[in-house]
Amino acid sequence: MVFRYPNGHPMSYDGTMKQKMQAKEKTTTFANRGMRFEEAINASNDYYLIRGQAVIHKKPTPVQIVHVDYPRRSAAVIKEAYFKEASTTDYNGVYQGRYLDFEAKETKNKTSFPLKNFHEHQIIHMRNCLKQNGICFVLLWFSTLERCFFLDSHQLIHYWDSQHTAKKSLSLSLIEEIGIEIQPKIAPRIPYLDAVSHYLQEKEKI
Amino acid sequence: MVFRYPNGHPMSYDGTMKQKMQAKEKTTTFANRGMRFEEAINASNDYYLIRGQAVIHKKPTPVQIVHVDYPRRSAAVIKEAYFKEASTTDYNGVYQGRYLDFEAKETKNKTSFPLKNFHEHQIIHMRNCLKQNGICFVLLWFSTLERCFFLDSHQLIHYWDSQHTAKKSLSLSLIEEIGIEIQPKIAPRIPYLDAVSHYLQEKEKI
Repeated sequence: MVFRYPNGHPMSYDGTMKQKMQAKEKTTTFANRGMRFEEAINASNDYYLIRGQAVIHKKPTPVQIVHVDYPRRSAAVIKEAYFKEASTTDYNGVYQGRYLDFEAKETKNKTSFPLKNFHEHQIIHMRNCLKQNGICFVLLWFSTLERCFFLDSHQLIHYWDSQHTAKKSLSLSLIEEIGIEIQPKIAPRIPYLDAVSHYLQEKEKI
Repeated sequence: MVFRYPNGHPMSYDGTMKQKMQAKEKTTTFANRGMRFEEAINASNDYYLIRGQAVIHKKPTPVQIVHVDYPRRSAAVIKEAYFKEASTTDYNGVYQGRYLDFEAKETKNKTSFPLKNFHEHQIIHMRNCLKQNGICFVLLWFSTLERCFFLDSHQLIHYWDSQHTAKKSLSLSLIEEIGIEIQPKIAPRIPYLDAVSHYLQEKEKI
């Protein structure tokens, strides 16, 4: 089974491919390109999967299917369907026996991350997972600054709960203080497991 | 937030609702009713969620969306989409800090469970999750017999791997021996966490 990057390239880490990828990375970044942050996370998940480091998948978009056509026996075409609201976060899976659950969000803002990027159902889901001792977090991408942060959901929920009396966004300086910065790389593009591992080590010290 | 059973009834476990549910359960079973086994598992997941016992969700069906119409600003209608093959099992989530991952399958067969009910990608996914120390299993439903079993994925994979030289199905007597029978109840309808808990206890003894 060949794993492919969303760009269709097989995930082979031999010298040739690495050189090609390095050459490519020099000329393109995923800032301000819409789905690029999500693509970078999906590629990182593929990388972690083939390396046997974790099994993390993005959940499919929930769709309510109303009408399906069968023009041929082999092919079904969905002719009418509607987007449904998700009841969870986008990503989950397993890392060294632990349950990981996270959401990825981006902003063009340069000085703070607006809390309105998060939805009530995501916060509820994170609260539920935390009660079951899951590892929950968010990956925050400042697309203009090209900076990425890991933020533990306990922290996010604390600021979410106080947004009606306090600030409606997390300032960059606060995120620098309470989050863990992730330096984008060639492979994995968003090495978020390094931040998870660092977070778990700090947690065990307490 | 009110959690509802797939039949639309709110999940309230006060006396009145319980009586109504008991009355209803007496007249209906989910044998031979297509989606009923899946519905029973989803209802059990809802039950575990509101009781704070576990956070397990069914993953949405993966769909490749090709064309979306926006007749009004508020409503998007998907006009062309295709079913994609899933790359994981249907259910996953967290239970007491542990990662749970499973697939639910049913057969009308009375004496054995055909292995063709499982797909290669599900087996691959289970292998990957087991390597990360996830708790992986399948729930097997004999719809004619109305009997349900928990089967650890290590066992399933063992028989899957030998199907070309040995049997292409798991006999009921084998499943009785190596699986854990789950007695359907009123709530949760498929109390599979009892089997998971039993499985974990046995595992710790070794």
